[in-house]
Amino acid sequence: MRTGDSTTVDVPQSSAVPKGKATLVTVAKQKGGWKRGVAIFDFILRLGAIVAALAAASMMGTSDETLPFFTQFFQFQASYDDLPTFQFFVIAMGIVGGYLVLSLPFSIVSIVRPHAIGPRLLLLILDTVALTLNTSAAAAAAAIVYLAHNGNSNTNWLAICQQFGDFCQKVSGAVVASFVSVVVFVFLILLSALAIRKL
Amino acid sequence: MRTGDSTTVDVPQSSAVPKGKATLVTVAKQKGGWKRGVAIFDFILRLGAIVAALAAASMMGTSDETLPFFTQFFQFQASYDDLPTFQFFVIAMGIVGGYLVLSLPFSIVSIVRPHAIGPRLLLLILDTVALTLNTSAAAAAAAIVYLAHNGNSNTNWLAICQQFGDFCQKVSGAVVASFVSVVVFVFLILLSALAIRKL
Repeated sequence: MRTGDSTTVDVPQSSAVPKGKATLVTVAKQKGGWKRGVAIFDFILRLGAIVAALAAASMMGTSDETLPFFTQFFQFQASYDDLPTFQFFVIAMGIVGGYLVLSLPFSIVSIVRPHAIGPRLLLLILDTVALTLNTSAAAAAAAIVYLAHNGNSNTNWLAICQQFGDFCQKVSGAVVASFVSVVVFVFLILLSALAIRKL
Repeated sequence: MRTGDSTTVDVPQSSAVPKGKATLVTVAKQKGGWKRGVAIFDFILRLGAIVAALAAASMMGTSDETLPFFTQFFQFQASYDDLPTFQFFVIAMGIVGGYLVLSLPFSIVSIVRPHAIGPRLLLLILDTVALTLNTSAAAAAAAIVYLAHNGNSNTNWLAICQQFGDFCQKVSGAVVASFVSVVVFVFLILLSALAIRKL
């Protein structure tokens, strides 16, 4: 909060300097501009999160691999359907992506009316819930992907990625995309918190 | 925000009613009381989260079971060390519990000075990060526990809970405790968000 070179940082300082009415009007405009900038950044972050969440859901949803050899009774195939955790991942990331699309209008309201607290508070509360859903899907899928890559000798769970390499690569990509979306959500919550406090 | 019977709800309405200085002082005190009540509730929730987080960490950390039979070369034993996800769980829940203990002084500052924004904003930001850590630990462990209970026929991962029943029960209890702590964190963030907005 110390005085810097940028015009956005030294707003609290300059409001204490008495220079007549013109300065105060400028300060008020700068305050609004700061909040509007946060709202625009919020909107851009939301677009990024939509891309990440839907990419994660679709990458996981289209991940299946059939091996090019088969026995008389059995064909070797891996799909996200085989593991309940991956099914949960697809559903959860779909919900998160849908929520993010529906939250865009509220973000636009914040840009148009930078001082309105209501939409920001609503977004903060819903973002927290969506963050929890997104994190749980990403972490659960990551635990299973780790197991698929490395296996576990103590429990006799064998690594399946030696056979299903392409499947594992797609699933890992989906997990990475969902963690990108988690990081964006954390930043969205921090931005909302900074914007709704008293100035 | 409509006028109700309770004194805490109709504060914004009554502040618009001109009844002299005495009313305004009462309103200001009521506002402070509302924020102080939120801060006290925040403190109590934090105590509950500490109990849940440390219970989860210690329950997982002490979970090992040795079966009462053994071969010449091998003794059947299960411990949280055997699975990297459970090791991550113990470390993450320990960090979350430690953070919660360290956050208590800031919560007390919020009780003593109900209108201070700084400590609440700090707690909101750190709570969001701790929520992410807590949720990822809980979800990853839940995915593995589900696998241990049910196994997965597609990947030939067998359920180990038939052999290690006590181990599985303790681990499941730890996962439940960590999800309790996740829910408490979500409420803590909502309370902080309500408290730091403009009144």
